[in-house]
Amino acid sequence: MTRPGVVSEEEIRDLGFGAVVAGESRQRLLNRDGSFNVERRGLRLSSSLSLYHLLLTTAWTRFAGLLVGSYLLFNAAFAVAFLLCGPDALSGGGDAGFARAFFFSVETFSTIGYGIVGPVGMAANLVVTAEALVGLLWLALATGLLFARFSRPTAKVLFSRTAVIAPYHGIKAFEFRIANARSSQLTEVQAKVVFVRFEEVGGRAVRRFYPLALERDSVTFFPLAWTIVHPIDESSPLRGVTSDELRARDGEFLVLLTGVEETFAQRVHARSSYKWDEIVWGAKFSDILRHPRGNEVMTMDVGRLNAIEPTA
Amino acid sequence: MTRPGVVSEEEIRDLGFGAVVAGESRQRLLNRDGSFNVERRGLRLSSSLSLYHLLLTTAWTRFAGLLVGSYLLFNAAFAVAFLLCGPDALSGGGDAGFARAFFFSVETFSTIGYGIVGPVGMAANLVVTAEALVGLLWLALATGLLFARFSRPTAKVLFSRTAVIAPYHGIKAFEFRIANARSSQLTEVQAKVVFVRFEEVGGRAVRRFYPLALERDSVTFFPLAWTIVHPIDESSPLRGVTSDELRARDGEFLVLLTGVEETFAQRVHARSSYKWDEIVWGAKFSDILRHPRGNEVMTMDVGRLNAIEPTA
Amino acid sequence: MTRPGVVSEEEIRDLGFGAVVAGESRQRLLNRDGSFNVERRGLRLSSSLSLYHLLLTTAWTRFAGLLVGSYLLFNAAFAVAFLLCGPDALSGGGDAGFARAFFFSVETFSTIGYGIVGPVGMAANLVVTAEALVGLLWLALATGLLFARFSRPTAKVLFSRTAVIAPYHGIKAFEFRIANARSSQLTEVQAKVVFVRFEEVGGRAVRRFYPLALERDSVTFFPLAWTIVHPIDESSPLRGVTSDELRARDGEFLVLLTGVEETFAQRVHARSSYKWDEIVWGAKFSDILRHPRGNEVMTMDVGRLNAIEPTA
Amino acid sequence: MTRPGVVSEEEIRDLGFGAVVAGESRQRLLNRDGSFNVERRGLRLSSSLSLYHLLLTTAWTRFAGLLVGSYLLFNAAFAVAFLLCGPDALSGGGDAGFARAFFFSVETFSTIGYGIVGPVGMAANLVVTAEALVGLLWLALATGLLFARFSRPTAKVLFSRTAVIAPYHGIKAFEFRIANARSSQLTEVQAKVVFVRFEEVGGRAVRRFYPLALERDSVTFFPLAWTIVHPIDESSPLRGVTSDELRARDGEFLVLLTGVEETFAQRVHARSSYKWDEIVWGAKFSDILRHPRGNEVMTMDVGRLNAIEPTA
Repeated sequence: MTRPGVVSEEEIRDLGFGAVVAGESRQRLLNRDGSFNVERRGLRLSSSLSLYHLLLTTAWTRFAGLLVGSYLLFNAAFAVAFLLCGPDALSGGGDAGFARAFFFSVETFSTIGYGIVGPVGMAANLVVTAEALVGLLWLALATGLLFARFSRPTAKVLFSRTAVIAPYHGIKAFEFRIANARSSQLTEVQAKVVFVRFEEVGGRAVRRFYPLALERDSVTFFPLAWTIVHPIDESSPLRGVTSDELRARDGEFLVLLTGVEETFAQRVHARSSYKWDEIVWGAKFSDILRHPRGNEVMTMDVGRLNAIEPTA
Repeated sequence: MTRPGVVSEEEIRDLGFGAVVAGESRQRLLNRDGSFNVERRGLRLSSSLSLYHLLLTTAWTRFAGLLVGSYLLFNAAFAVAFLLCGPDALSGGGDAGFARAFFFSVETFSTIGYGIVGPVGMAANLVVTAEALVGLLWLALATGLLFARFSRPTAKVLFSRTAVIAPYHGIKAFEFRIANARSSQLTEVQAKVVFVRFEEVGGRAVRRFYPLALERDSVTFFPLAWTIVHPIDESSPLRGVTSDELRARDGEFLVLLTGVEETFAQRVHARSSYKWDEIVWGAKFSDILRHPRGNEVMTMDVGRLNAIEPTA
Repeated sequence: MTRPGVVSEEEIRDLGFGAVVAGESRQRLLNRDGSFNVERRGLRLSSSLSLYHLLLTTAWTRFAGLLVGSYLLFNAAFAVAFLLCGPDALSGGGDAGFARAFFFSVETFSTIGYGIVGPVGMAANLVVTAEALVGLLWLALATGLLFARFSRPTAKVLFSRTAVIAPYHGIKAFEFRIANARSSQLTEVQAKVVFVRFEEVGGRAVRRFYPLALERDSVTFFPLAWTIVHPIDESSPLRGVTSDELRARDGEFLVLLTGVEETFAQRVHARSSYKWDEIVWGAKFSDILRHPRGNEVMTMDVGRLNAIEPTA
Repeated sequence: MTRPGVVSEEEIRDLGFGAVVAGESRQRLLNRDGSFNVERRGLRLSSSLSLYHLLLTTAWTRFAGLLVGSYLLFNAAFAVAFLLCGPDALSGGGDAGFARAFFFSVETFSTIGYGIVGPVGMAANLVVTAEALVGLLWLALATGLLFARFSRPTAKVLFSRTAVIAPYHGIKAFEFRIANARSSQLTEVQAKVVFVRFEEVGGRAVRRFYPLALERDSVTFFPLAWTIVHPIDESSPLRGVTSDELRARDGEFLVLLTGVEETFAQRVHARSSYKWDEIVWGAKFSDILRHPRGNEVMTMDVGRLNAIEPTA
């Protein structure tokens, strides 16, 4: 029951949603940040390595918070351990108490070791032995994670907040705009856009997938912005579709980009999607470039990525 | 003497088993974890780098054990070295003896250096010089190995414990199921399945290889589970094969997967195999997905990867 | 209005300059060092990660300067913090003052901790706690950045200072020469050369792009120098072009190279361009190789990369 | 003047030897270890990064030697600096002299800092400030280099010491054998073999290159040994060539391999060559595999890689 221009069940699987896409959920398939709107259950932590993945991909501010937090927590825990060794486990440095134990823990964990306070007896020395190891491994882990974060190739492609239906060579076109938010180059960038909508099949609403032909689907270099254009011509599945129809059928445009990040020379992916309520009809993107004259250098204002203007 | 549908001797080599596949061993070719059922001899340690490879690929718990064990061992060894320097080699810190030497070794190896105990004389100071270097290199090695482990692209593809012979569009199909056990995405996943069985050639049992045509042999994204299906149609080498025949001929299904791990954007491999006794006849895989309704998010229960149910 | 041999507007985009190339700027498109002659505005620091990119790609001398500078700055800042804790915050070590605070800060930051000077009271100990963490993270960051710099695949392709228009098999050819400035090998090197000039279209000067056919556009290995040659034959857009014409039309030759760096086995890019005033007419490249005789090893003198000699 | 089966001058360049291959040197083109028999001159150290490349690619024993040597050298140099600060620059710890300065330097460089000996005065403290920084950077560099060495994808392909001219399906074949010396897998291995010999052209001996057709030029997996075979059939440039002729014409077989190293999933290269005096006529390779029976595991004896036996 495959019609021309329609993605077959086989091709649906290529998008990685398997049989589930035929379900009845009205949730979007792809979130704006490119993550799949899917939950996995039944994986043990050690198997899914979600902690590790989190440490690699979390924001830098949160990663810094985790480093500081774990440093304080380890030191507090070892301070308690020193206190549990008894009142004579530490010598020197004035008043016994949590503060002395904590600051002694700090100089042990960080391997400073002033030696003004010192461990006394077997128990305290064993705690020192453990804390020294933990401190060294903490440093090794922090360094290792920092490296892994640094050397991970990442693209940050900015997608325009909205897509537009704009005039295009006498017909209309579905358009959105992307920009490279990193100072490093992206090369060999390829784009794939798929239109999804619900259709009635035997009285049941099922999702149908339509790949959209693009005016241009790849660029060798991507130093500036790129407006990705699907002309709504005779062969387009959007031919004659109205705004109301798009809303009634829960229309969604899936965007899949791949490219090569130049600093680490590795292939990176970016995904996003536009739902029917993120599309502006009868608008076009404003110029993002300041046209240079004479001897000026070309400039692009990324802040204007989302700027659109109505068309007649 | 090549028959259509049979893999020639040339193609056998493509699987990397060389001439040995024609041997008489009834051992499986691929282990369930994807390692080759092959032993290499005659390689020196320094040449095969097996220690390094072990440190990179061993489980995290074992790696942690190696770190702790080597830390304690180095400190004990240097403690003995300090004791061998004589009774006056260390000053301060109470009772001379192994304990004092060991804990002094700890603060030297870890570069804490409280200084309550200190080295006296040339011998003890030379041991300190050596231990400081060993401690720094131990830290550098631990850190370097941690990075290398972190930055290594790895896929953990879960294979269903059994394969099934299930009804499929009026005929039967050989099917197994895989899931991505990592929270990171796998993209551009490709599957290759080869059927191996013993056949009589001139009175001798030799292995024959048959590549199996798949309903679908690649997916662009792989966020959920994927059931890999070989329809047993007219052209299938499994056409008319029974369970008993499969057992008599030591049937084995080799599975080779490649994909791109998204976090590090590198190509990864996964292999496995199903022997005749890991195939369930007349069963199908139970649904791994909870079909969403309305505004629910799609969910997949990886714990149900192995769940099969009998068919009529 | 596309003429044969002319790059269409579509193809222009492939070079990543988008619509801007049709502008009126007489600035070169590519700088000699391969960077795009383009400015991006409106990116926040955290988004463009320009600090990180700078730390990765800046020269080693400057990177070393940043390490030393930040080390001194952190120590000075914590010295001030210790002084702010009051005159009794540090004990021992002679004269109170900035020098004592600074040197105590050094032994804390670097985790030496002689303990001859020591912190007294809650405030000084909290500063120690903070400085120990900052010192550890500084070390982790320095180490992480060093790895990231080390493990980043980089090519350093030297381009001859000038290109030449040289005699070639009875006709002329546009030629330039490149050499690998690294001791590691570059493999699978591919070259693309595009000629750009202004042309009058409807009374307006617009840029036109012409890809140039090369005598050879790829090499598997690149151990020595490579002279890249575009023969100016009947089909060449340079056919009949004079030096004066090139200057009047602001001619520029864009060069795009890709290859695989062998040490890290990753794809690297190099770009450069030659403007009309960097081309020598009626010259050829001098021999860069010392032709070996008998049992001598072949040698290449990279210092002679730019050497040209006039032709009759 | 290109004859069929002969590599043209264009194709010669593909091997990266440029015009030099037409020279008169009788030196081999490729060394047995795969390095090019070429010298580059005129590159400044900073440009060629040869120190860095050396540190990355030198043997582990030599790398360890460099670490230990630099550690001792730095400590000795700073010991001299402390001595130059005057007799009162260090306090405590018994006899002043080089030994005390050296061991104090060790505890400063390694950041141990017992504090039994301590710096006195501005000069000694400034030396401490410098040494602490140098010690931290030494550790960061050592760690960074260790990582870079660890994470570098390397293949160690063993080539049989000799190639053979062996009987092959009624004709003869040029054969050599390779094995993977690493415990990690090599996948997607491709081989290219080029035959080079001197020929008289206009009274001058010039090198001619002939690519050799292989029975099989790639394998997907490479767990065991692989015998690479060029059948000397009607179309072979070796047709009718004798041992004496090969010697007179300085025959050399260049071998170029590429593959994907599985641990780091990156493309690696291996090269080697066989000269006329490294070829055994009328021999074949002995079995490297122990043929398994019943339930034994297959084993390969890498030590037998070079084993050949005469043929009738």
